[in-house]
Amino acid sequence: MMRTQPEGQRAKPSLRSPWRLALHEVIFEADTPAGKGFDVILIISILASVIAVMLDSIANVRFAYGGLLYRIEWFFTLLFTIEYLMRIVCVGRPLHYAISFYGIVDLLAIIPTYLSLILPGSQFLLVIRILRILRIFRILKLVPYLKEAHLLLKALKASGRKIAVFLYTVLTLVVIFGSLMYVIEGEINGFTSIPRSIYWAIVTLTTVGYGDISPQTNIGQSVASIVMILGYAIIAVPTGIVTVEMSHSFNTPISTQACPECSAEGHDTDARYCKFCGAAL
Amino acid sequence: MMRTQPEGQRAKPSLRSPWRLALHEVIFEADTPAGKGFDVILIISILASVIAVMLDSIANVRFAYGGLLYRIEWFFTLLFTIEYLMRIVCVGRPLHYAISFYGIVDLLAIIPTYLSLILPGSQFLLVIRILRILRIFRILKLVPYLKEAHLLLKALKASGRKIAVFLYTVLTLVVIFGSLMYVIEGEINGFTSIPRSIYWAIVTLTTVGYGDISPQTNIGQSVASIVMILGYAIIAVPTGIVTVEMSHSFNTPISTQACPECSAEGHDTDARYCKFCGAAL
Amino acid sequence: MMRTQPEGQRAKPSLRSPWRLALHEVIFEADTPAGKGFDVILIISILASVIAVMLDSIANVRFAYGGLLYRIEWFFTLLFTIEYLMRIVCVGRPLHYAISFYGIVDLLAIIPTYLSLILPGSQFLLVIRILRILRIFRILKLVPYLKEAHLLLKALKASGRKIAVFLYTVLTLVVIFGSLMYVIEGEINGFTSIPRSIYWAIVTLTTVGYGDISPQTNIGQSVASIVMILGYAIIAVPTGIVTVEMSHSFNTPISTQACPECSAEGHDTDARYCKFCGAAL
Amino acid sequence: MMRTQPEGQRAKPSLRSPWRLALHEVIFEADTPAGKGFDVILIISILASVIAVMLDSIANVRFAYGGLLYRIEWFFTLLFTIEYLMRIVCVGRPLHYAISFYGIVDLLAIIPTYLSLILPGSQFLLVIRILRILRIFRILKLVPYLKEAHLLLKALKASGRKIAVFLYTVLTLVVIFGSLMYVIEGEINGFTSIPRSIYWAIVTLTTVGYGDISPQTNIGQSVASIVMILGYAIIAVPTGIVTVEMSHSFNTPISTQACPECSAEGHDTDARYCKFCGAAL
Repeated sequence: MMRTQPEGQRAKPSLRSPWRLALHEVIFEADTPAGKGFDVILIISILASVIAVMLDSIANVRFAYGGLLYRIEWFFTLLFTIEYLMRIVCVGRPLHYAISFYGIVDLLAIIPTYLSLILPGSQFLLVIRILRILRIFRILKLVPYLKEAHLLLKALKASGRKIAVFLYTVLTLVVIFGSLMYVIEGEINGFTSIPRSIYWAIVTLTTVGYGDISPQTNIGQSVASIVMILGYAIIAVPTGIVTVEMSHSFNTPISTQACPECSAEGHDTDARYCKFCGAAL
Repeated sequence: MMRTQPEGQRAKPSLRSPWRLALHEVIFEADTPAGKGFDVILIISILASVIAVMLDSIANVRFAYGGLLYRIEWFFTLLFTIEYLMRIVCVGRPLHYAISFYGIVDLLAIIPTYLSLILPGSQFLLVIRILRILRIFRILKLVPYLKEAHLLLKALKASGRKIAVFLYTVLTLVVIFGSLMYVIEGEINGFTSIPRSIYWAIVTLTTVGYGDISPQTNIGQSVASIVMILGYAIIAVPTGIVTVEMSHSFNTPISTQACPECSAEGHDTDARYCKFCGAAL
Repeated sequence: MMRTQPEGQRAKPSLRSPWRLALHEVIFEADTPAGKGFDVILIISILASVIAVMLDSIANVRFAYGGLLYRIEWFFTLLFTIEYLMRIVCVGRPLHYAISFYGIVDLLAIIPTYLSLILPGSQFLLVIRILRILRIFRILKLVPYLKEAHLLLKALKASGRKIAVFLYTVLTLVVIFGSLMYVIEGEINGFTSIPRSIYWAIVTLTTVGYGDISPQTNIGQSVASIVMILGYAIIAVPTGIVTVEMSHSFNTPISTQACPECSAEGHDTDARYCKFCGAAL
Repeated sequence: MMRTQPEGQRAKPSLRSPWRLALHEVIFEADTPAGKGFDVILIISILASVIAVMLDSIANVRFAYGGLLYRIEWFFTLLFTIEYLMRIVCVGRPLHYAISFYGIVDLLAIIPTYLSLILPGSQFLLVIRILRILRIFRILKLVPYLKEAHLLLKALKASGRKIAVFLYTVLTLVVIFGSLMYVIEGEINGFTSIPRSIYWAIVTLTTVGYGDISPQTNIGQSVASIVMILGYAIIAVPTGIVTVEMSHSFNTPISTQACPECSAEGHDTDARYCKFCGAAL
């Protein structure tokens, strides 16, 4: 369960009225048929609304079905607004939910439609609803996947400082090489400003290479070659960092149990007998 | 042997007529001179037919030799059709063969020609015949290569869940960044719809960078820079996953010894006692 | 502390006058409020001046605020010049500081403005001031980050020879493939000279792929395909090198304990006796 | 010493005349001052001739100094031809040298000039002379680098089968996806033939992404997205393979020596005393 359940911690569920508890059961849990059904409908609604937003962005489709898609958008937004309010009402600690990851995503998933009344075009940000699909992991009992995701996040967090140092190095490199190229190539060759040259340096160092800006002079191409080989080589650094950290995070299922007879360690977690002396663990 | 041999499992080969057994020996086995010769001729035919298909796709060549290539195509298709029917006839369990990997590939390798009568152009899908070349491993006794391939597949399967989580993250990222860029850049700068913007996000995150669509505004280039650096950095994640899993698959010289008591396998090479029942190994 | 402090080594601080010592405390140290305040003001000045340089490179901004930015540039340059001279004056061993990494960066951060009087445009190289921000690590007590950076550098240094061999191989490959493509594609297809073709080979091998030069002939595209697959595959080499070295650097929790007898260091954490002289640790 | 020295193996040097032995000492060895001097002059000549070839390929330079460069080219070619003949003459087993790696490179380094009399343009292949620079390792006593190169080659060879399986998979993928895109996009969108579509698939899968051919249809862009994500993900496979193999090749300097007192193992190679009991090893 990724979602924190404040009720259990409070141990005072009696303070809430029975209908709020029942509603909570349906909306927040996925163990009862009603709760599971609610989640399934929710996910279908999310997918349908995201597809509607995407279709609305295609000129031809908007021209033909713009009115319908507009109504669908508002229908889902109102639906999700009601759902959001219901979540606020039935949860034990509303504020705790509202500032949790899911609470913020749930809110962000309805704001753009209202915002589009003032700022046309912002309704396309509704695709952030896709993040709500994370709930799918709960319904489909995809707990093993959550565990894997947790392991990955753990490995990334453990290497956080090293990655920060790496990113700092990359940013310093692109600022310096970007400015150098601005001086070398100049505005006539497309390097119209230092920020734009830094953008070019990022495009090149990350080996993306759009080609919308590319060096024309001999010196520029030489410097660009250095940036490319640098980018090609230093990709090894984050890879090395993450691999080593993952190797740590994943390699630990060795049991810490020592044999009561011979004190040998390093048993597999599924071992029932010592592999060295045969004593029961 | 990758191909399952249902005969051995059935242990009732007498049910089949002698000519079917002889045919089976030639078509399915590669131990006899006839069987090996059959396979060699088959592979040459496959390569020849794939080359004919490729040549047929080049405008100049088709203009000059279109008729000849058309006849070659049909010749090989009829040949492979006869071969497919013969395989169905002589095999012990036809259905089992038909739904196996090789059975499906063998069928897919003849369908496009017939399909091209209805749907012109589909004959170019005949290149799927290239997959039939996998048989080459059997003839050339490339068993060590099959073992390596098996190890690689094992490592990939073992990391399957982690890769699924990674792909899910990548897909979520490209949907959100794609939509964001659609809002920022708009249709005048080539981001004509959300699906197309998602396509751009994939092109950028994977560091392919065609340059057919590229951000023009300052904010767009800033967001694109974030996507590029993300793409440059998170390639470390699948690399780390696969490396660690391969390190497990290749590095664990799991003993092939089975416990004399409980027949359990998977003991470490330094184990002296069964870790499940405690019996001496 | 990354900066070497020659005073401590000399142990003769009395030779310098008190005001030089006080100035040294403020400029070089970050432990006193005055020293910390100085560093904070310095970093803000550096960032402000770098932003001014970047803004100055944007045509519109320069057109509107060129005079102001010019004055800001000179203001900061004079400020940093005074600071540089003060550092030279108050430090114990001026020459030692002048040729240290920080000393050179401090000097390079003021030269471009003076140079721009002779060589217009060189003032944009002022962005090298960004390197001065490295001091930020000292103020913010980011010692753990420095340690991580040190570990990364150690891993890279340890694999220095292997990386040199790799770079030599890459350079040989791009020279040979570049010349080959010059002969194959020729000047009409954009491969106008061997240096330019080598530039193309680097763009391709590093998987950057601008597309400003791309092969047009069939043979050229075949050779390009080989270069691409080579580049796609050999990225594995530096990655492997760095990963293995990092795995060494990070995984060996070398004890900081020195042998009481022979003062040797570098013992394993599980060592109970000095591995060099056999004395108990 | 990378070069095999057949004399030592034959142990019959007396068969050769003294001047041949002296010449051999100078040309093939780098231990005497004369031998070292010869190698230094050789490398300078190689570099000079390669630079001359490169300069000759630049239109402006050829226009101005074409005659001079043509004479320089022939001068060096004749020089290297004499050197090659001298090597053949003074070496103990001429054929053995002629078919060795260095012998072939030495020959290839002179052929293009003669070939250019028949086939204009082939003189640019003279850059293959750059491979002769490998001798530099011998002169500069870069034996440690040779060892590292040897380690890298060992790791690559050890993973040879796995890399072959990987390359086979990549080639199958690009053939199938290339043909699929030819059918989907068709000749009007730049996918003019299957070979050209396969070229596109390689450009995309390896994340090079020139953008000279890029999908225009919605289905084409979807398939391209799959190819990109595949290419982005499966780069992890060779990286994993090479990393694991390198980890094997590099990690073995642990001494195999066991302590004579306590039989403990896992000592460092520089250990003189057992780290567990303090006994001399």
